[in-house]
Amino acid sequence: MVGKKIPRSPLAPEHFPKLAEIAELGLNVFETGSRYRGRDDLLVITLPAKASIAGVFTKSSMPSAAVDLCKEHLSQSKGRVRAIIINAGIANAFTGKQGQASAETVTAACASLLGVEPHHVYMASTGVIGEDLDPSPLVSAMMSGLDKSEDNQDWLSAAEAICTTDTFAKGATGAAKFGKHRVSINVIAKGSGMVAPDMATMLAFGFTDAAIPAGLLQKIIRDINEESFNAITVDGDTSTSDTLLFCATGEKPLGGAALRSVNDPRLAAFKKELKRIMQDAAIQVASDGEGASKLMTIEVSGAANDASARKIALAIGNSPLVKTAVAGEDANWGRIVMAVGKSGERADRDLLNIKIGGHHVARKGRAINGYDETLVAAHMREARIKLEINVGVGKGRARVWACDLTHGYISINADYRS
Amino acid sequence: MVGKKIPRSPLAPEHFPKLAEIAELGLNVFETGSRYRGRDDLLVITLPAKASIAGVFTKSSMPSAAVDLCKEHLSQSKGRVRAIIINAGIANAFTGKQGQASAETVTAACASLLGVEPHHVYMASTGVIGEDLDPSPLVSAMMSGLDKSEDNQDWLSAAEAICTTDTFAKGATGAAKFGKHRVSINVIAKGSGMVAPDMATMLAFGFTDAAIPAGLLQKIIRDINEESFNAITVDGDTSTSDTLLFCATGEKPLGGAALRSVNDPRLAAFKKELKRIMQDAAIQVASDGEGASKLMTIEVSGAANDASARKIALAIGNSPLVKTAVAGEDANWGRIVMAVGKSGERADRDLLNIKIGGHHVARKGRAINGYDETLVAAHMREARIKLEINVGVGKGRARVWACDLTHGYISINADYRS
Repeated sequence: MVGKKIPRSPLAPEHFPKLAEIAELGLNVFETGSRYRGRDDLLVITLPAKASIAGVFTKSSMPSAAVDLCKEHLSQSKGRVRAIIINAGIANAFTGKQGQASAETVTAACASLLGVEPHHVYMASTGVIGEDLDPSPLVSAMMSGLDKSEDNQDWLSAAEAICTTDTFAKGATGAAKFGKHRVSINVIAKGSGMVAPDMATMLAFGFTDAAIPAGLLQKIIRDINEESFNAITVDGDTSTSDTLLFCATGEKPLGGAALRSVNDPRLAAFKKELKRIMQDAAIQVASDGEGASKLMTIEVSGAANDASARKIALAIGNSPLVKTAVAGEDANWGRIVMAVGKSGERADRDLLNIKIGGHHVARKGRAINGYDETLVAAHMREARIKLEINVGVGKGRARVWACDLTHGYISINADYRS
Repeated sequence: MVGKKIPRSPLAPEHFPKLAEIAELGLNVFETGSRYRGRDDLLVITLPAKASIAGVFTKSSMPSAAVDLCKEHLSQSKGRVRAIIINAGIANAFTGKQGQASAETVTAACASLLGVEPHHVYMASTGVIGEDLDPSPLVSAMMSGLDKSEDNQDWLSAAEAICTTDTFAKGATGAAKFGKHRVSINVIAKGSGMVAPDMATMLAFGFTDAAIPAGLLQKIIRDINEESFNAITVDGDTSTSDTLLFCATGEKPLGGAALRSVNDPRLAAFKKELKRIMQDAAIQVASDGEGASKLMTIEVSGAANDASARKIALAIGNSPLVKTAVAGEDANWGRIVMAVGKSGERADRDLLNIKIGGHHVARKGRAINGYDETLVAAHMREARIKLEINVGVGKGRARVWACDLTHGYISINADYRS
């Protein structure tokens, strides 16, 4: 697939946003030639000594070497961080002890160049599975110079360096009140195909200049991740390498009493803006699903609980029959009924309500006689499709984002050999 | 989709097998014009008074009216049966109380025409979801004449009358020793797309002239179903209407002491042949998956238990990335690793072994250096692909059959409006 040009997703934002400068953070991009030619494929982010880090990882039982390493370093360092290394092209997954050694070699070399503890350096890898990652070109590149300064933070180049089959670089940004300060929040991400261990995986890296202790940061990120990166699906497949790392550089303290709880009202504005930014980035990932032509927002209500609503919403978002119906601009709500039924979650067939684009098409377990099909058909021709389903058994709610399933997905994944 | 000609699956058997005559069984086909034109779309099978019946149904929480009716009649009749009615074109699913009334009207009319109890008549419907089933054309057709005799059993016409998007009629047959007798076993089935509530669903009907009490028959069918119709997948979607009904006409008694256990050694030959026939029919259904170009046999071993092995095998068989790799003739075992990892089941990454077409490609969590890729590539070009995975944690085993995911699936499900 290397070298094959995939057209830019029709769902891509018009341009990459202007991300804020974050003091004492360095962005270093390199062209290692490991797998790609003529493009940057290595990003090294450096952070100040007072920075904290939180991480959320794939639930796959076959995690990549980098995922194992991050989990170990997070635990050993108690949430300290001085650098994150991301390479694109080779996932270093299913590579056994040799893969583990490669990841350790690269992070140790970086630590040595920066003069920091090895377990304060993290790594994420994306690309082809089962191929050994030669550490040499990565180490050579880093030796050519790591810029620790915050000058000229080129976030677009950083976001581009971590892409694989992505058709556009993904970034989101914003600012929030944090005590007396106004803090910045930046997220860059990649992923196209929720996954596709062959080439794509979801990686996201977030940064703020706020000071948040690692323990609290971990809880905040884990919660918001459920409603953002964990609420999107492209093909239901789960990568060996999915990684979200979030760092707080600590430049801007909250002031006042020490932070002890994620529910501290002084964190409210920050958490709200962080959620908006993480959802923005997550939706960009779903919008770049392989072959995606439409983005679905699926809202399930009336479920036994929120977790059940989420499972139902994902069953709809992952159903090949729902996804192909959306691709075909067919308001085939029968397939939504099927997907609810197969979710295994509690739902009352005879109370099921379905809205498409805000228009009621089924109520109390039956199609609505004579609903205005032209309005629904017009909505189905849009790029952003909204499905609302009430399953009639409780108060559980969830929202997920998914893309459609098109010939483009088959072309990317079947027609070209890896 | 009605009227659109889908090419015959390249995996179809050369011809429909010659099914055995079963005494006192009547096959009646009718053209009702309910949805299709110029083809039979109604099959009524009549059975003698001494026949017993067993049934297995979709686990969907949104079952069709016919599924609800069958479950009720099975329970009320304690496994007695005089007729089975199958209509193609309209699934009578998600049609509320009116749907229930339609199914009851049709079965009651049939019972009246045959002079039997209404709850001795069963029904299965397949076709479009959410559309009301008008009972009139079905009742009118049956009134034109139900032939209760066993003469001229045209199994091919019967199998054709229940098809929807199927590209070929499905039948399997055989015979087994049963006490002093040799008994026949016939199965007809339809389904293309494990499902596709829009048009396709899996229905299977089996018949033998052996005498087997309904309670035992139910246990035998439920067990063998797990290793046949429940061991295939096309797209992982689950129909509202999936139904397997199996009838024993009772003509040929076993003799000797009454049957009390499914483990009675006198049943061994029958069960073995029944399993072979049900697997044959199930594989025909998987082979007619929408757009299928290749059939995968997926064997998982080394799992924590058989149920876990089955979940892993289905995770592989349902993975869009595995299915597209197979469609693209790409021996992309990295996607198999991914699917094992996402299954949620116990597996040891560092002990994982993978064979493709009998050739080892990965062992102990790593690709095998220098395995003969040409042999594996040659296997991938065949129509029948074999994947063997040992996950290294126990003795659980399972085998499932699945088809690939091609442009044909997208064309059938997205390019044409229902």
